[in-house]
Amino acid sequence: MSCVFCAIVAGDAPAVRIYEDDEYLAFLDIRPFTRGHTLVVPRRHTVDLTDTPAATLAGMLAVGQRIARAARASGLHADGNNLAINDGRAAFQSVFHIHLHVVPRRSGDKLSFAKGMVLRRDPDRGRTGELLRAALADCDTPRPD
Amino acid sequence: MSCVFCAIVAGDAPAVRIYEDDEYLAFLDIRPFTRGHTLVVPRRHTVDLTDTPAATLAGMLAVGQRIARAARASGLHADGNNLAINDGRAAFQSVFHIHLHVVPRRSGDKLSFAKGMVLRRDPDRGRTGELLRAALADCDTPRPD
Repeated sequence: MSCVFCAIVAGDAPAVRIYEDDEYLAFLDIRPFTRGHTLVVPRRHTVDLTDTPAATLAGMLAVGQRIARAARASGLHADGNNLAINDGRAAFQSVFHIHLHVVPRRSGDKLSFAKGMVLRRDPDRGRTGELLRAALADCDTPRPD
Repeated sequence: MSCVFCAIVAGDAPAVRIYEDDEYLAFLDIRPFTRGHTLVVPRRHTVDLTDTPAATLAGMLAVGQRIARAARASGLHADGNNLAINDGRAAFQSVFHIHLHVVPRRSGDKLSFAKGMVLRRDPDRGRTGELLRAALADCDTPRPD
C-alpha cells in the first residue's frame, strides 16, 4: 500500500484523529498552516475531482463544515476557516488521495498564516486534537438545517 | 439591496456567467488569481459556513466540480484547480454571501498564480467565459458516478 492516507485510514500509519465515521476520517495535517489545520478524507481511495463521485465530495464537505464550526467554538478560538481542495499536482496537491483542508483562522493572523506556509509546525498537536474533538462533540447536536 | 452577489443573481449587476440553474449561479471573478477563476454562489443569500445548510454546500461543490472538470477539458488547458471556501473575514472572505472559488491551474504556473494574487486581472474575460461555457456544455453529459 503506497498511499499514506489509505495507511492512516487502515490504522497502519499514525495520526491525531479528530473525527471518524463509516465513510470519512479527519486528522491533523502533519505540517499545519495554522494550529488545528485538519484534513478530511473519504475512507475509499480516489485521486482528485476527476474521479471522485459528487456524493463523496458532498459528505466530505459536510464533515469539513462541522469541523469549521467546531474550530470557532473550540479552545482554538477560530474566527473563521479556509476550506480547500487542491485538485491535481498543478494545484499543489501532494498526496493523491482526495482530501479537504480545513484551516482555522484568527482575526489578524495573516502573518502567522503566511509563516505557517513555510514552517508548518504545531508544538503541541495532541492538545490541539483534544480541543477540536471536544468542540466537535459539543457542536454535533442536530441543527435545524 | 447591499449584497453584490445578490445583485448579480438578480441581474442588476453585470457578470460573465459560466453556469446557472434554479439554485446556483457561477460567474467569473472580477479580480481573478488565474484565467478562468470562477465563483459559484447559491441564489439564496447566506453568509458563511455557520448559517449555510450542508445540502446547499453539497450542491455548490457539485457545480464547482463540474467547472473544475470543464476547465481541464477547455481551451484554458487547466492541469488542475484549487477550490476554496473562505469562511469569515478572518479567512479573507470579502463578500458576505457564501461562495466557492474555482481557480484553474496549469503545471508550472506557480509564479503567475502568485502574481495573480496581486494583479488579479484578465485581459479578455469575454473569451475566457466562452471557453469555459463551451467545455462545460461538452462535459455535462451524465457520468457513471
